[in-house]
Amino acid sequence: MTTQQLTTNILQKKSFLCIGLDVDLNKIPKHLLETEDPIFEFNKAIIDATHDLCVAYKPNIAFYEAHGIKGWQSLQKTIEYININYSEIFTIADAKRGDIGNTSSMYAKAFFEDLNFDSVTVAPYMGKDSVEPFLAFKDKHTIILALTSNEGAFDFQTKNVEGKELYKHVLETSKGWKNSKNLMYVVGATKAEYFTEIRKIVPNSFLLVPGIGAQGGSLHEVCKYGMNDNVGLLINSSRQIIYASNQKDFAQKARKEALMLQTEMKTILENK
Amino acid sequence: MTTQQLTTNILQKKSFLCIGLDVDLNKIPKHLLETEDPIFEFNKAIIDATHDLCVAYKPNIAFYEAHGIKGWQSLQKTIEYININYSEIFTIADAKRGDIGNTSSMYAKAFFEDLNFDSVTVAPYMGKDSVEPFLAFKDKHTIILALTSNEGAFDFQTKNVEGKELYKHVLETSKGWKNSKNLMYVVGATKAEYFTEIRKIVPNSFLLVPGIGAQGGSLHEVCKYGMNDNVGLLINSSRQIIYASNQKDFAQKARKEALMLQTEMKTILENK
Repeated sequence: MTTQQLTTNILQKKSFLCIGLDVDLNKIPKHLLETEDPIFEFNKAIIDATHDLCVAYKPNIAFYEAHGIKGWQSLQKTIEYININYSEIFTIADAKRGDIGNTSSMYAKAFFEDLNFDSVTVAPYMGKDSVEPFLAFKDKHTIILALTSNEGAFDFQTKNVEGKELYKHVLETSKGWKNSKNLMYVVGATKAEYFTEIRKIVPNSFLLVPGIGAQGGSLHEVCKYGMNDNVGLLINSSRQIIYASNQKDFAQKARKEALMLQTEMKTILENK
Repeated sequence: MTTQQLTTNILQKKSFLCIGLDVDLNKIPKHLLETEDPIFEFNKAIIDATHDLCVAYKPNIAFYEAHGIKGWQSLQKTIEYININYSEIFTIADAKRGDIGNTSSMYAKAFFEDLNFDSVTVAPYMGKDSVEPFLAFKDKHTIILALTSNEGAFDFQTKNVEGKELYKHVLETSKGWKNSKNLMYVVGATKAEYFTEIRKIVPNSFLLVPGIGAQGGSLHEVCKYGMNDNVGLLINSSRQIIYASNQKDFAQKARKEALMLQTEMKTILENK
């Protein structure tokens, strides 16, 4: 999917919501545990109930890997289900990968070809040759961690590097990499005041924004400072939506939560 | 496995060699492609031919993930084969993971519990709460990327942060994290001159050292500046050993390469 197509979808659906599929067997409704593939059944119900309210789904790969081969099967079924039934959805493998060149090529192949995701999250610590292999894929997107929503973000990301914060170096340096038009960035909503500075460096890029809701970030603040002419934001919500209920009504309750966020987004887009 | 046990194994085997299992179907002998699980068959032959010459194996997870479920099965069979037949071997999941707390817990569970690796490599960019969930596992080891062997290492890792390089901040800061005794670090052999400085910060930690051979690092230089009283080094070699031949003699040729490195290591340990 191209970023133009993504913006078109956002404007049509009046939503820039991304739903995180962090499926924890301890948190999903008990009755699903009796099915052959509880993770997939859970995802399928959530997706069927919310697909018209969001533009992206983001499976968090750790939650699948933790179950080994069975988890990988659930992941594969989930991405296939989205690609076949809701092909307008932008899919994000939240994998936070990154390694030396030939290894990154293998990860890129895993997520872009084998699983057919539209995008993957990547850690920047190993630099240019660890990210460029991902960028080489046409109409696929590489979402680099810039400023994350957790406390540990302050350990290194905000440290002063030759006059400015490390995450700003990540933003600036990455712009010079080959096929950098395929880059997006992770910027946590918990740090809304940083968005003005970030937009000076990457005015046109899409930002994937975790940390709304459960982690305390404000949707309005993020939009005020982070939105650009192409919207340029994907706001992620995971637990608040998918664990709205752990009863048989979980999918309807998830839809209700998603609808609340989408309604706010609709208002923001209309007043833009 | 404890680090004391690892040092004991090193002194017994007179080797601190780690063999990287980066299995690429385009590089392995053609006759293996006819078997049901070429990756596992390749690994099994390499392991059987080299286990007495090395103390660790390091599957590079990307090379398995690139084949989806089938690759994950090969990985599982490989780690089981090592754990059952050569339980004295230290196993490293070269995964370079790292995410917010609850997600890192899932990755830790995947590699330490589900697959039963002794250790996993982790990227430090997201800071303390992305690494501590790994450190919570008893007798399991978390190997943080400090200074990697690729060109991109100079993009951020060696940047000056408030008076010293970023990788030194990673070393120093991580020492203050909970259960930091379970930390090891990745330091590339291509940067042997950095080892003196690194040993001032982490005198006692084990260092996993890629970049010998194919990437140009010198074993003698690394040992001169990096070895400590407990040896404290695991020198990784991947392609030079496992792709020594792509014919039916591949395992014997791999053994020959491993033996050359182990013989050098033996001399170094005896002259220590």
